[in-house]
Amino acid sequence: MSWLDEVRWDEQGLVPAIAQDDRTGRVLMVAWMNRAALQETARTGRAVYWSRSRGRLWRKGEESGHVQRVKAIRLDCDGDAVLLTVEQVGGIACHTGRERCFFREWREERWVVTEPVIKDPERIYPASVKGKGDEP
Amino acid sequence: MSWLDEVRWDEQGLVPAIAQDDRTGRVLMVAWMNRAALQETARTGRAVYWSRSRGRLWRKGEESGHVQRVKAIRLDCDGDAVLLTVEQVGGIACHTGRERCFFREWREERWVVTEPVIKDPERIYPASVKGKGDEP
Repeated sequence: MSWLDEVRWDEQGLVPAIAQDDRTGRVLMVAWMNRAALQETARTGRAVYWSRSRGRLWRKGEESGHVQRVKAIRLDCDGDAVLLTVEQVGGIACHTGRERCFFREWREERWVVTEPVIKDPERIYPASVKGKGDEP
Repeated sequence: MSWLDEVRWDEQGLVPAIAQDDRTGRVLMVAWMNRAALQETARTGRAVYWSRSRGRLWRKGEESGHVQRVKAIRLDCDGDAVLLTVEQVGGIACHTGRERCFFREWREERWVVTEPVIKDPERIYPASVKGKGDEP
């Protein structure tokens, strides 16, 4: 059996994939992978996700340059979630220009932004893709 | 608008929730939350998930004692994933008796178990729930 068959893909053929920075240990983002995305990630050593909004493979950093070099790929006990340990090129994972997508924290019944924008998204993405950017 | 309305629940009313150990930084597990689970987690400071297999709220550690004390709750940029920072009581998050669910690593087209069982699951779960245990 292929290692890809050991993954329990959901009814859309997807699993959630977490990217964690291998240097800081911070959880950067969660995206989705289908079979082709996981296979290409393993083969190339660069994170590839499935963009649900765009309905195509999303080679992380293809527009922003903020690629993720994959150090390890892990699978959970029931096979339905993937954990990538990555080197985040540019130190920015989020399309908002922040280090990571989890920049809001719950405090007293509110979501509070706790992390700064490192680089203006308008400087990350060319005008042609502005507003679409590197979003899932 | 309630903070709960800012979460983008999927068509089943769920979002993936990651638990990360606040001491070691290790990603322990991914489970699912519905609105009630997230609300109770925020209110009580203990991780509560939605068990898709059992179709009910799953108060993590309710059978094993391996509860998760929540230090922070974060929401990602598009509002469809939650990150919990937790103190993992007992140092075991996985129903297999391992520290975490991500105990398999991809190596040369295979998933290799890289992390040890800390405690035999038969000693974690009472006989009445054996095989069901603390699984999602």
